[in-house]
Amino acid sequence: MPGAVTREMPSTWIETPCPAPSAHHGAAARARQAMLTKPAGSLGMLEELAIRLAALQATERPRAANAPIILFAGDHGVTAQGISAYPSAVTVEMLKNFANGGAAVAVLARALDVPLKVIDAGTLAPEPLPGVVTDKPCRGTRDFTVEPALTEDELAFALAAGKRAVEAEVAADLVLFGEMGIGNTTAAAAIAAALLAKSPDEIAGAGTGLDAAGVTHKVEVIASSLARHGLDGPGADPRRVLACVGGLEIAALTGAIIAAAQAGRPVLVDGFIVTVAALAATRLNPSCAPWLIYSHRSAERGHATLLAALGARPVLDLDLRLGEGSGAATALAVLRLACALHNGMATFDEAAVSGRSTP
Amino acid sequence: MPGAVTREMPSTWIETPCPAPSAHHGAAARARQAMLTKPAGSLGMLEELAIRLAALQATERPRAANAPIILFAGDHGVTAQGISAYPSAVTVEMLKNFANGGAAVAVLARALDVPLKVIDAGTLAPEPLPGVVTDKPCRGTRDFTVEPALTEDELAFALAAGKRAVEAEVAADLVLFGEMGIGNTTAAAAIAAALLAKSPDEIAGAGTGLDAAGVTHKVEVIASSLARHGLDGPGADPRRVLACVGGLEIAALTGAIIAAAQAGRPVLVDGFIVTVAALAATRLNPSCAPWLIYSHRSAERGHATLLAALGARPVLDLDLRLGEGSGAATALAVLRLACALHNGMATFDEAAVSGRSTP
Repeated sequence: MPGAVTREMPSTWIETPCPAPSAHHGAAARARQAMLTKPAGSLGMLEELAIRLAALQATERPRAANAPIILFAGDHGVTAQGISAYPSAVTVEMLKNFANGGAAVAVLARALDVPLKVIDAGTLAPEPLPGVVTDKPCRGTRDFTVEPALTEDELAFALAAGKRAVEAEVAADLVLFGEMGIGNTTAAAAIAAALLAKSPDEIAGAGTGLDAAGVTHKVEVIASSLARHGLDGPGADPRRVLACVGGLEIAALTGAIIAAAQAGRPVLVDGFIVTVAALAATRLNPSCAPWLIYSHRSAERGHATLLAALGARPVLDLDLRLGEGSGAATALAVLRLACALHNGMATFDEAAVSGRSTP
Repeated sequence: MPGAVTREMPSTWIETPCPAPSAHHGAAARARQAMLTKPAGSLGMLEELAIRLAALQATERPRAANAPIILFAGDHGVTAQGISAYPSAVTVEMLKNFANGGAAVAVLARALDVPLKVIDAGTLAPEPLPGVVTDKPCRGTRDFTVEPALTEDELAFALAAGKRAVEAEVAADLVLFGEMGIGNTTAAAAIAAALLAKSPDEIAGAGTGLDAAGVTHKVEVIASSLARHGLDGPGADPRRVLACVGGLEIAALTGAIIAAAQAGRPVLVDGFIVTVAALAATRLNPSCAPWLIYSHRSAERGHATLLAALGARPVLDLDLRLGEGSGAATALAVLRLACALHNGMATFDEAAVSGRSTP
């Protein structure tokens, strides 16, 4: 249940500008790609990813070795409306599964040899869980069909929890974010519909596995909630949106994305939920946008619309719809190969390979 | 220059049926995926890849650890017609770059910790090159605008060279094939147009980087050659196609693909050239089709058409158009994660996670 929260400082840090990527290093990386022993552009997105990372890391040798996955979990009062195929208890059960290494993202973290850090940003768990950092203003959100999901203070706390999680990652080459929270595709779809001023039926999908009737009900729940909170038209304020229909883990993700970009750290965005947080982050602080690399196109309805609104071309398209950071982790393997190619290939001169015979 | 070749045994081995994948292990793998702690199907293609590998490897625990990359190189007489942006000398120069570790696929092989085996299946190199296996019936093909590229004996030799290369890989979990050969997108497009009975302008693309006029010329060269050899209608015999407009490395790839499937080894198909070899292989021996996993959709024009004709959905779509096996190597990283998830995730029972609350 939501409870009292110590009054947070007003989150003015949110608006602090993010640094610009290094145009110099981006240009140098592009020039290097043109000298490597391959036809110009023939490594496609692998070239573009290396060039982007070089510009973001302000380096000649982009890296994706140290890439912690930070997972934020939260519970959602709106589950009272029957909008998920799974009960809320699963959120905390899965936190244990993350800590014990049995969940998908935990397996991927081991396979990729990166740390997985799990933050309870607002689950119903009454006590701290082993292997989980607890940093929450309350236990779960309120049911946003009847009242705002979060108070302003709770929202500020959650945004700052994201910042706190990122501040520890001073050695990260980039950061990956994941999430867990039964009901959070409903909250995320509500946020996206409000921020994009789109009808919820263009955004809301099956989540963990609703049937068609379940999706219709979910769309109705979102539509009536947006109307109740006056968020069913254009120009909605992103803080109000996050407070009225948000989630604690989504707000923490939003704060974490902005804080990572402010610290000059590239972010590998996961699927539907994290992309909604990225949308909120770019609305709160547009200067964070260049720091976001989109890992995959989710099978969740609405993700393609979100990616288009963000001007994003994702790395992968594998029909993933799990969340947890699993898509970002999978894309990390591709980013690492992009870096290896950029840094390890010979140039035409080094390899004594002839250039083009036709212009 | 093409030269004399010892008479090969008639390549009747080509028609030997490939084993069927294990339906039992495929079903068991699908059942296991349904028990893992995630909504059913939420890992999308990562689930399907693990299930396919389990069926092909007849195992409960699919593997993609031991995955050698075998690269076949050849030169093409049709380069006399100015159909490539690079001179033929680059083929042999790149063989040295593979052996010295500076080429893209060599960098990827190191990053993935898999062996790279380079076969000179028919380049112009007059002497064997260090670090390269020489297994060729002649130096380059004839210019197919004026005569058949290969004799029947040369074709049989090249098909068998592919088989010989695969026979050494008794411990491989799967095999990756790559290629190098200035001019080989022209030969491959000619083969594909003949086998699919399509106009060359639907298939032929920029290769290593032709401009629009160059592509138009390439299309004309292919169209007139197909007409000259009587391959411009439906029902072309695949052996005749490979001999008339083929390449030694493409024929070796075709033989290698069939031999791998006959030996019960999954094949991770690279881009445009290897897909054309896969098309030829499935025409020569349709029972090899289930053994082929398509790694990526190339930016080369015609690849999407080829994949559609083969009923293939590739793993990646990264605008790659380099060849060498670079796309297959990149996809290997994703296959490995698919296996890790399948083998390493906890089941709902093991993790004590609740199942669905709605059916």
